[in-house]
Amino acid sequence: MSESIKYLLQEQDIPTHWYNLVADLPEPPAPVLHPGTGQPVTPDDLAPLFPMAVIMQEVSQDREIEIPEPVREALAQWRPSPLCRARRLERALDTPARIYYKYEGVSPAGSHKPNTAIAQAFYNKQEGVKRITTETGAGQWGSALALAGSFFGLEIEVYMVKVSFDQKPYRRAFMETFGATCVASPSDQTESGRAILKEHPNSNGSLGIAISEAVEMAAKRDDTKYALGSVLNHVLLHQTIIGQEALRQFEMADDYPDMVIGCTGGGSNFAGIAFPFIGRKLRGEQDIEVVAVEPANCPSLTKGKYAYDFGDTAHLTPLAKMYTLGSTFVPPGFHAGGLRYHGMAPLVSQLTALNQIAPRAYKQAECFDAGVEFAKAEGIIPAPEANHAVKAAIDEAVRCKETGASKAILFNLCGHGHFDMQAYTDYFAGKLYDQEYDESEVAMALAGLPSVATG
Amino acid sequence: MSESIKYLLQEQDIPTHWYNLVADLPEPPAPVLHPGTGQPVTPDDLAPLFPMAVIMQEVSQDREIEIPEPVREALAQWRPSPLCRARRLERALDTPARIYYKYEGVSPAGSHKPNTAIAQAFYNKQEGVKRITTETGAGQWGSALALAGSFFGLEIEVYMVKVSFDQKPYRRAFMETFGATCVASPSDQTESGRAILKEHPNSNGSLGIAISEAVEMAAKRDDTKYALGSVLNHVLLHQTIIGQEALRQFEMADDYPDMVIGCTGGGSNFAGIAFPFIGRKLRGEQDIEVVAVEPANCPSLTKGKYAYDFGDTAHLTPLAKMYTLGSTFVPPGFHAGGLRYHGMAPLVSQLTALNQIAPRAYKQAECFDAGVEFAKAEGIIPAPEANHAVKAAIDEAVRCKETGASKAILFNLCGHGHFDMQAYTDYFAGKLYDQEYDESEVAMALAGLPSVATG
Repeated sequence: MSESIKYLLQEQDIPTHWYNLVADLPEPPAPVLHPGTGQPVTPDDLAPLFPMAVIMQEVSQDREIEIPEPVREALAQWRPSPLCRARRLERALDTPARIYYKYEGVSPAGSHKPNTAIAQAFYNKQEGVKRITTETGAGQWGSALALAGSFFGLEIEVYMVKVSFDQKPYRRAFMETFGATCVASPSDQTESGRAILKEHPNSNGSLGIAISEAVEMAAKRDDTKYALGSVLNHVLLHQTIIGQEALRQFEMADDYPDMVIGCTGGGSNFAGIAFPFIGRKLRGEQDIEVVAVEPANCPSLTKGKYAYDFGDTAHLTPLAKMYTLGSTFVPPGFHAGGLRYHGMAPLVSQLTALNQIAPRAYKQAECFDAGVEFAKAEGIIPAPEANHAVKAAIDEAVRCKETGASKAILFNLCGHGHFDMQAYTDYFAGKLYDQEYDESEVAMALAGLPSVATG
Repeated sequence: MSESIKYLLQEQDIPTHWYNLVADLPEPPAPVLHPGTGQPVTPDDLAPLFPMAVIMQEVSQDREIEIPEPVREALAQWRPSPLCRARRLERALDTPARIYYKYEGVSPAGSHKPNTAIAQAFYNKQEGVKRITTETGAGQWGSALALAGSFFGLEIEVYMVKVSFDQKPYRRAFMETFGATCVASPSDQTESGRAILKEHPNSNGSLGIAISEAVEMAAKRDDTKYALGSVLNHVLLHQTIIGQEALRQFEMADDYPDMVIGCTGGGSNFAGIAFPFIGRKLRGEQDIEVVAVEPANCPSLTKGKYAYDFGDTAHLTPLAKMYTLGSTFVPPGFHAGGLRYHGMAPLVSQLTALNQIAPRAYKQAECFDAGVEFAKAEGIIPAPEANHAVKAAIDEAVRCKETGASKAILFNLCGHGHFDMQAYTDYFAGKLYDQEYDESEVAMALAGLPSVATG
């Protein structure tokens, strides 16, 4: 083997600590506010929904937070994930760039989501919780939490948006294989679900409704808590294991990325790969360009406003300062369901406001072009979300060819597309077109931002 | 990490040679016969269909055959595959057994099939072939060859059984992503296809018809050859990389299996894991029990006859001596489509006749019970074929609990179930039942065996 294409660590090399970006920020994050009082939320405010260990991570300022040994052992089922050098793609593009990808699709759920699902399940189990509720759209997060629940002996109850529940029976079967309960939302099991069904008996559901149902169930039962798969600080923290592994793998490769790329929906896979590198930059250790790629039809970072907003459509959550298109904005449908969120993680938003991240938006058809080019060269069919990162990496590599620059480009291949083949079927049938988002809807949603946002 | 659960080799540890069991057999394999003359087929007879390098491997008696460097480099995309210790499953079963599985689902096509697809594509490319035709049933083999064609710049034309083509659009999209052409069989592109369509315009197709179409296309075009995904000696040879890696990984684990288990359809994944261990046994180096698991409703090894038979329903192939249910027998439908074959690889058949392999048959529902139990403990949803091996491993581990024996059990987890979730959906809906095979149909098929078979 003349040229390495994979950099593999052993299971004992799984990082022992998560990296907390907050410790290296030039200014502390804007506080999360209680929507009623406008005052910062306290750990006690969140206690009905999350275990205390998770809440303390949410507000921690420590640079390193130890990963419990049972979490490392569960992650060892698939971690460390490989860092791959895309030599075949480089040859196909005839580029002087060195393209690397961290492949998170090796997890049993097929994406990076189990990195935090495992941790959250562990802390819930440790604090005596019996059941975790959550919502899922396309099913990636629900699948990850189902897996984690199975590993730690917790009941998992997933409220799945009804239209997806009906369209994606395989994701439901995946969750049920791990013993989780998957309920079409709106359901008749919650007050919020029943209220919707009373008014709209044939409701297709929405992520906002599903969140309401999951939160309601968690809040009203002592043995039950709630889990979220992105956006919050502790979720991003748990994902930093990705970038930390990559740092060690670049040492093995005797290289260092000039640019790191991730796709961004809520922000967790992006943060996972990028934060450890951004931390080194903020500490003055090593410079790097950072690119966040979002869908052109849900462009929170490139077209949104940096302001206080709700995390959900139904306005049950606290207010967070973030780039947002307005919590009442409903993005048009596209296949990268994991990127269909009106806001952006507060930490990713803050870094963008600080010009530490260059955001970029692509339409879905050009992302699928890139994904298919990648698959043909590298053998892996990316998830539609990951195609956004692939597109940016290929664009950069082509630019290197034009300029002759030999950059090292790293991107996060956050998941495979095995459960998204309908999207590829549509693509090959020429049925993949972009439904443009409505700028006036965004303007209206932004006009309706809560008043604290003006501060 | 107190206890290892994965034994990982680096890409430079990919074996440099395939292991050829023929060298260690107590007697040479029965020759493959020309159905017209009854005489052994010559390399020249096979030259229209296969590249000469592959034909020479088919008849080779050398113990070791060097793996070309470009094949090793292509395999390095995912190989070596992990050897995993199923510690969570052991705890769930409360067994003193040590359960190991070699996980072939890490390949981009999700199964062991690319191990031979890559090698066959390489040899075809080397001999100037432009196009490879093949057939596929459920789609695993077609997917693997599509991937290999993409790596080596070959056109791949897959004749996919029409009923599967219609029912499994995702497998088709998978192949098309890698640039392969996927044609519903019977098609109007071949004489054999047109003949069938003339008589049965709404034919659902069959593997036999698809083979006929693929072989016809390969035979009539100089730049085109044909590839098979199982049964033949060279295919089994290419899979021995699995067992060879496992041997090295057991050294890392400081252990050695008492029993090795594989599911058997055509025999290739079974041969891949088992032959290197059987070779050591045949050479008197180390004893081992070997279990081949087949579906109860296509029981070639446990209920078939060891005789000369055709490889296909349409009787276009040469005659091989193997355990067979009769080439005209059509097995009832079940979800483990990869095990739905009337015969068994000649080398696996010979070992079974020599009592070197203990065959065993299971019904599909009990295999899914085992697969779900495995998934809950280990996080991986096995393919329906692999569930047969899982079932045997769990049965053995439970027996160890009863007897107190602390055996080391190795099985081949030959693929994941991401493209088989409909089977799991049926299972959870209680719709998974066995359609019993018809013994009188087998008796009739066996009565019709070609006359040479009596010799």
